[in-house]
Amino acid sequence: MLEFLGLKDITELVNKAVPADILLDKNLDIEAPLGEHQLIQYLKQLADKNQIWRSYIGMGYHNTYVPHTIMRNIFENPGWVTQYTPYQAELAQGRLESLLNYQTMMCDLTGLDISNASLLDEATAAAEAMGLCFRHSKRRRFYVDSNCHPQNIAVVKTRADALGIEVVICDWKEMEFDTHDFCGVLLQYPNTEGNIVDYSLLIESAHTHGTLVVAATDPLALAILKPPGEIGFDIALGTTQRFGIPLGYGGPHAAFFACKNKFLRLMPGRMIGVTKDANGNEALRLALQTREQHIRRDKATSNICTAQALLANMSAMYACYHGPEGLRHIADRIHNATRILAEGVQNAGHTVTNEMFFDTITFLPVNGKDEIINRSNSKKVNLRQFSNGYVGISLDETTEENDLKDLLEIVGSPKTAEEISQVLLAAPDTSLNSTPFARKSLYLNHSVFHRYQSETNIVRYMKQLENKDLSLVHSMIPLGSCTMKLNSTTEMMPCTWDEFANIHPFVPKDQVKGYMEMFTELEKDLCEITGYDKFSLQPNSGAQGEYAGLRAIMSYLSSKGETQRNMCLIPVSAHGTNPASAQMAGMKIQPINVDRYGAVDMQHLEDMIEKYKDTLACLMITYPSTHGVFEKGIRTICDMIHSSGGQVYLDGANMNAQVGLCRPGDYGSDVSHLNLHKTFCIPHGGGGPGMGPIGVKKHLAPYLPTHPVISPINGTDEESFGVVSAAPYGSSSILPISWAYIKMMGAEGLRHASEIAILNANYMSRRLNGYYKTLYFNEQGYVAHEFIIDCREFKKSANVEVVDISKRLQDYGFHSPTMSWPVAGTLMVEPTESENKEELDRFCDAMIAIRQEIQDIEEGKMDPKINPLKMSPHTQADVMSSNWDRPYSREVAAFPLTFVKPDTKFWPSVGRIDDKFGDQNIMCTCPPMSAYESPFVEK
Amino acid sequence: MLEFLGLKDITELVNKAVPADILLDKNLDIEAPLGEHQLIQYLKQLADKNQIWRSYIGMGYHNTYVPHTIMRNIFENPGWVTQYTPYQAELAQGRLESLLNYQTMMCDLTGLDISNASLLDEATAAAEAMGLCFRHSKRRRFYVDSNCHPQNIAVVKTRADALGIEVVICDWKEMEFDTHDFCGVLLQYPNTEGNIVDYSLLIESAHTHGTLVVAATDPLALAILKPPGEIGFDIALGTTQRFGIPLGYGGPHAAFFACKNKFLRLMPGRMIGVTKDANGNEALRLALQTREQHIRRDKATSNICTAQALLANMSAMYACYHGPEGLRHIADRIHNATRILAEGVQNAGHTVTNEMFFDTITFLPVNGKDEIINRSNSKKVNLRQFSNGYVGISLDETTEENDLKDLLEIVGSPKTAEEISQVLLAAPDTSLNSTPFARKSLYLNHSVFHRYQSETNIVRYMKQLENKDLSLVHSMIPLGSCTMKLNSTTEMMPCTWDEFANIHPFVPKDQVKGYMEMFTELEKDLCEITGYDKFSLQPNSGAQGEYAGLRAIMSYLSSKGETQRNMCLIPVSAHGTNPASAQMAGMKIQPINVDRYGAVDMQHLEDMIEKYKDTLACLMITYPSTHGVFEKGIRTICDMIHSSGGQVYLDGANMNAQVGLCRPGDYGSDVSHLNLHKTFCIPHGGGGPGMGPIGVKKHLAPYLPTHPVISPINGTDEESFGVVSAAPYGSSSILPISWAYIKMMGAEGLRHASEIAILNANYMSRRLNGYYKTLYFNEQGYVAHEFIIDCREFKKSANVEVVDISKRLQDYGFHSPTMSWPVAGTLMVEPTESENKEELDRFCDAMIAIRQEIQDIEEGKMDPKINPLKMSPHTQADVMSSNWDRPYSREVAAFPLTFVKPDTKFWPSVGRIDDKFGDQNIMCTCPPMSAYESPFVEK
Ligand SMILES: Cc1ncc(COP(=O)(O)O)c(C=O)c1O
Ligand SMILES: Cc1ncc(COP(=O)(O)O)c(C=O)c1O
Ligand SMILES: O=C([O-])O
Repeated sequence: MLEFLGLKDITELVNKAVPADILLDKNLDIEAPLGEHQLIQYLKQLADKNQIWRSYIGMGYHNTYVPHTIMRNIFENPGWVTQYTPYQAELAQGRLESLLNYQTMMCDLTGLDISNASLLDEATAAAEAMGLCFRHSKRRRFYVDSNCHPQNIAVVKTRADALGIEVVICDWKEMEFDTHDFCGVLLQYPNTEGNIVDYSLLIESAHTHGTLVVAATDPLALAILKPPGEIGFDIALGTTQRFGIPLGYGGPHAAFFACKNKFLRLMPGRMIGVTKDANGNEALRLALQTREQHIRRDKATSNICTAQALLANMSAMYACYHGPEGLRHIADRIHNATRILAEGVQNAGHTVTNEMFFDTITFLPVNGKDEIINRSNSKKVNLRQFSNGYVGISLDETTEENDLKDLLEIVGSPKTAEEISQVLLAAPDTSLNSTPFARKSLYLNHSVFHRYQSETNIVRYMKQLENKDLSLVHSMIPLGSCTMKLNSTTEMMPCTWDEFANIHPFVPKDQVKGYMEMFTELEKDLCEITGYDKFSLQPNSGAQGEYAGLRAIMSYLSSKGETQRNMCLIPVSAHGTNPASAQMAGMKIQPINVDRYGAVDMQHLEDMIEKYKDTLACLMITYPSTHGVFEKGIRTICDMIHSSGGQVYLDGANMNAQVGLCRPGDYGSDVSHLNLHKTFCIPHGGGGPGMGPIGVKKHLAPYLPTHPVISPINGTDEESFGVVSAAPYGSSSILPISWAYIKMMGAEGLRHASEIAILNANYMSRRLNGYYKTLYFNEQGYVAHEFIIDCREFKKSANVEVVDISKRLQDYGFHSPTMSWPVAGTLMVEPTESENKEELDRFCDAMIAIRQEIQDIEEGKMDPKINPLKMSPHTQADVMSSNWDRPYSREVAAFPLTFVKPDTKFWPSVGRIDDKFGDQNIMCTCPPMSAYESPFVEK
Repeated sequence: MLEFLGLKDITELVNKAVPADILLDKNLDIEAPLGEHQLIQYLKQLADKNQIWRSYIGMGYHNTYVPHTIMRNIFENPGWVTQYTPYQAELAQGRLESLLNYQTMMCDLTGLDISNASLLDEATAAAEAMGLCFRHSKRRRFYVDSNCHPQNIAVVKTRADALGIEVVICDWKEMEFDTHDFCGVLLQYPNTEGNIVDYSLLIESAHTHGTLVVAATDPLALAILKPPGEIGFDIALGTTQRFGIPLGYGGPHAAFFACKNKFLRLMPGRMIGVTKDANGNEALRLALQTREQHIRRDKATSNICTAQALLANMSAMYACYHGPEGLRHIADRIHNATRILAEGVQNAGHTVTNEMFFDTITFLPVNGKDEIINRSNSKKVNLRQFSNGYVGISLDETTEENDLKDLLEIVGSPKTAEEISQVLLAAPDTSLNSTPFARKSLYLNHSVFHRYQSETNIVRYMKQLENKDLSLVHSMIPLGSCTMKLNSTTEMMPCTWDEFANIHPFVPKDQVKGYMEMFTELEKDLCEITGYDKFSLQPNSGAQGEYAGLRAIMSYLSSKGETQRNMCLIPVSAHGTNPASAQMAGMKIQPINVDRYGAVDMQHLEDMIEKYKDTLACLMITYPSTHGVFEKGIRTICDMIHSSGGQVYLDGANMNAQVGLCRPGDYGSDVSHLNLHKTFCIPHGGGGPGMGPIGVKKHLAPYLPTHPVISPINGTDEESFGVVSAAPYGSSSILPISWAYIKMMGAEGLRHASEIAILNANYMSRRLNGYYKTLYFNEQGYVAHEFIIDCREFKKSANVEVVDISKRLQDYGFHSPTMSWPVAGTLMVEPTESENKEELDRFCDAMIAIRQEIQDIEEGKMDPKINPLKMSPHTQADVMSSNWDRPYSREVAAFPLTFVKPDTKFWPSVGRIDDKFGDQNIMCTCPPMSAYESPFVEK
């Protein structure tokens, strides 16, 4: 490839692609690389330093029996985890169906009309709900019941601060709405102490005064508890963690967000919708994308981009596997165990505060809590300890007889579970089911929740869906800016080890020494790689990192008394999450133009700096730019910002081009997020999980995120701007992936990866040269690790649009590059270092063949309307139909090049998606499935 | 379904299907069932009782780095493990390709012409080699070098005993061939002490005298060692365990068997061959099936049926992943480490016996071995201890610096590895590579061994192959007699835990207390289930179990002085392995007729008992019969045999119909094998692994298999007939599957499974009634857990043969039932209890639709030659071709019923296989692959 580029070695390429004034002049100081098996040995030692106690802490995190078959066939299966967000719906009907199941499940359980397909965690979902309430009425006050989970309160407060919303935290009984200035109220249902209370009067009053009411709720409770929708709540949110997702010391889990239909266009996050394909058949796709940041930028409903698709899928499968009867059974079992426990606590002389509860009780120990805590510690059991001396216990589906026995011993119950159970059975029924809180309505009625209750069936269902989705197990996915590189098995293995997976996020830190050691090592390595001084591992996604970083900047500026600084300059080429995050951080946004090389328009930048010199807070810039080029002026740009009193936020999504070659912290950036799910090998999971930790220079370190329960900061956190995730370290259990990647690569391996990523991009750009124009190069004619090809001319010459090329690529077995971003009418190609020349060539061959097809249209050899591009992608039904009436052959449609062979062909499972139809006819739950019918079966 | 059958409950069905005089009148005494998660907790405790020491014992078992991606994507992937042997080649091109890679690899490495696609283990492969030599020249003496691995010698001796072959064990230097009465000679290369010696003169002499020469060899050594084929060996065999298959305390592993072309038709085991499909395209299939037991019965080349396909595939992938350079690198690294170690041993004053070695040295400790063994024990290191005081050490690819350091300390080397290495480097090269033993010839030149050296590529390759194979993740596989039931994730999980996977089979028993406890529990449960008194877990397959059981019978009879008893009566409906095993056990075979109900022809049986009353050794009978019926006379039959002085061998392959309902040990059988890979949930792996433990009544217990290294018998093994597997407990690491299945099912669950299996079969038989005739019922009109449908009439009525129906079923997405066995022109359907009504109905619908298609031919509505049955299966290329000229539509070809939908369609990847062409043009290694060529790439 170097030869093809006319280069003598990779160093020459690097020197031509990367500006000399930022090139790193040393090797990274990273430990010598470990082999895969050595790494696993070492990891086992770390794992052993984590202690797995039985945790009954609750607070939104519960033990769960992860169905082994779902774990193995989804989470541990590259066919499910290596996809990106389903942008190309025709190749993604599998996970789209599963996510639609998720939405259907959440609508059913909450009793609300619509649901999205996951948010990052319950706390940010609560903050998003506040955002919705605010957008709805523009009122700037928001009530939060003091008995919400503390992390929910903390994240809501943090978000509110920046938006200029006043959060009033008080007991729900004290809330008053007649001032008409509250946009919404957040209640926890059941609340953090486990209480189930009747909110109906409050809801009525709120509604009368134009205030929306939000329930943070527990989906398992809702299996037997009256759903929020039936009580009048406008929004319900929470986490489906306890639906078969490991605790993972905090994540990743999927949060849900459901609401009434009328808030459809205000709802944050991604939603799957039902639409039609070109043949009029039902098909699924991401709905209402026009709400999102990549279109609406700072006007978007939220900055959520990467969410928790993989975990949402696991939870949806958990529901498919158990079915409604199974869920109800699990919920009843837990509730009964809790009733026994409550009785035992009472019998022991403690005061249980709960009148009604599902799975959680809170009590005041009769002689103080010490004795109880000593006993629980000696049994390696974690209970919740309130600061006021109360103790909380939350049960879950894993609570078996012996656990209940231990808990009764811990609280000092004079009776055994068996004895208490007999007492309860003899007395009148006081369970939830006998009260007005009992759920009467059915749920999960759709056949998808009734057909897969055996392992044989659920395995086939998972495999069916898997096989509809093009993933990295099939071919390269050259999505620019997404870095679809290898997600290796070795890196993934620890994520499902008990020692990483089965730990509650709020256990005392001395139970997680293994994690702490790993975090310390990871932070150290990331600092070395980026040139920053300190990292926060809390943000759960790139966009959350942006938000956190900007908040740190604002806190820093305000600590210097420069509270007037709130202007954020953002080049127009930036990812949509940048302006959306800046808006959420309470900043004003000034776009900066780019010049015709795709670089920042220096004159415009200078002008804007001058114009806003008093209020300039920061520049938010992606490097190498989203145009696929290492701009040479980056150092100068950073200097310009600094000398005008601003800070530089460098979006680290493109670190894959930089590791080992240059460091943001060296050339002038103050803060960056890293998408660990790009450069650092966390698989995308079809739209999450991700991790977006932020690195900062020393002066910003004091302002990094804290946490109300477990402080992630060693030392004082007084200056922290607040909390951005429900868990102290975000999605802890996927951090071993990035940690392991760095350990196995070592300094040289890491640099080499960047070099090859750059080489591959330049090779492809050059091979496509003459067929497609690469839009931007640097002055020397080289691109970075990705490049944009211009497809706009074909609109005129052949009426071919970029979407036609994207869809036609599917016929060749490829996922399209990033379409029309950051420049409309273009494709952005990122090969990554994981693909070899053979695969790059296959892709180029496909692109070149498509160019030929365009030329056929240009030259009048092919019909301008009915041609392989316009009619793409071609499905089996198309090509196998007896009624083929196209001016090109079936073979041209489906097997256009020799490498597209029947035995390895990847078939789009639907024809081209009709987005307009879907957006005009929004339908976001499972449509009735044509039930299985045997044409012969006796009726 | 009961209603459909007109039954009031399942008990009624059981009473109608199973003879009253054998029905079990109690519940099985099995512990209460555990949930999946409880089981895993319990298993962890067992696992913790196994100690993982570093073992350098060698003897054919070596530590290996199992590539994690292969483990996860093959062994832990139901898409790879749930297939049966590739009888329907059109749906099995994936694993056929991988097995062909295996054969190619073994031909290359051994330097021989042809190879099969796995045998059970090295020791049985050695015995099979002796069998080949014997069949070749009919001479009844066989030489074995005393420096072969002891288990190889033992298994060969055991086999020879029964065949009337005299095994002469001596030092190879003492072998003489001029008596012309030796059929063959077995040499270990390198030998068990690690020596590499020059056998060329011996080989020459043997050949001159018509004696074949067999090498038991090590494939990793062959990466740098002159291959057997180049030295003149006729046969090479061994195990590919160290090619990425865990030790597993003995297995499962794949053994290989390669030989010169001229022995093709004498070669044991399954071989993959290249042939053409109906369109003239290259296609793979099982070759030369006419050699096998299901055709040749007692004249077969061996009784091997279930082999080790899954493990062969893992090893083949290991070679694809490493490529020849990788293998050579690994071999060189090990050899160098061994040279350093040898020098250290020497320096410490001990006497190394090896002049030339690859990875193993044997030495006489200067002051006796105790000190060394104490030191090794204190480091938890296992060395080989010879009875004569010598010590052996075998290194492997996992031997890292610190291991070598520890070993040097253990032997008391005065110098460090580093120091020794410097000495060696300074001296003239004395490595293998500098000697005439060095390998000069290239190997693994085929592109398949050069294209997948990155994880990205190997994952895609594994997925491509997986997707060509129909497995249980797609649909039911109703192979009669094969019991394709659920292989659950939970049961599979422990197999890959270190504590079960990473243990050498010859470690002291106190290191495997967890295994021992599990074996004890498993044996206890199997005894309870079968009514036997004792089990041997040694046989690696059903056929091995048969052999072992028959040998036990013969030993028992001979212990009573009845050495004349050697006649084995076998109903003609028996599986072909029965007569093949009886022949190997040195018995004479008398077939017994069956009557028109498929039952044993009682008159014929009586006559034959009478005829052979003096020599009758046993009856070998399958129950319920292979005709799918619980014959009512089984008790009587057993009594008849016993009263004539014979024993009853009951083939337990059909235990799936009996568990919890009746017990062979109760109604008169003396010994049975159980196919744990059928009834007890070990997945078939596409043709193995399996386990065929045998249960016996008390009087046979003393004769069960023993082992020369680790006795599996607690107590004296003097009366044992010998050894049937290389490892004391066969394929230990898959035993947790069956153990876990029993633990999770409990007594009721087990019985219920049998009941549902019977119900499902009866339901299907009844649903197909009117379309297809079920051939055999019992007197009450019921079948057992499987049934045979007769397709012979269609030959006359429509020129349709059973194979046409089988192949046409593929178009409907189904794997054919067992074809033409045990009755030619029929299909034997076994649904198992794992399939639900929906799936049974889908299959019946397909069969009914096919019956309609036959009727269309019968009625002249469809062409008698060109019709959907004769042209089946239909490939994508067929159906998508522009040139469709058939008298039926593309839709009829590929989507014949509504449930066959494009988005879930399973496509046969080749057209109908031409078996004749393949057998006439045998080609058993990879054909040249059309190399990847980009039509556009610059040259
Ligand atoms: C340049 C850039 N910045 C930010 C983001 C947002 O990251 P995340 O999806 O993790 O929120 C992306 C995601 O694609 C991106 O490409
Ligand atoms: C009735 C019967 N007996 C014996 C066997 C041989 O078992 P294995 O394949 O494990 O050697 C089989 C295998 O299918 C069988 O069906
Ligand atoms: O493999 C069988 O022959 O059943």
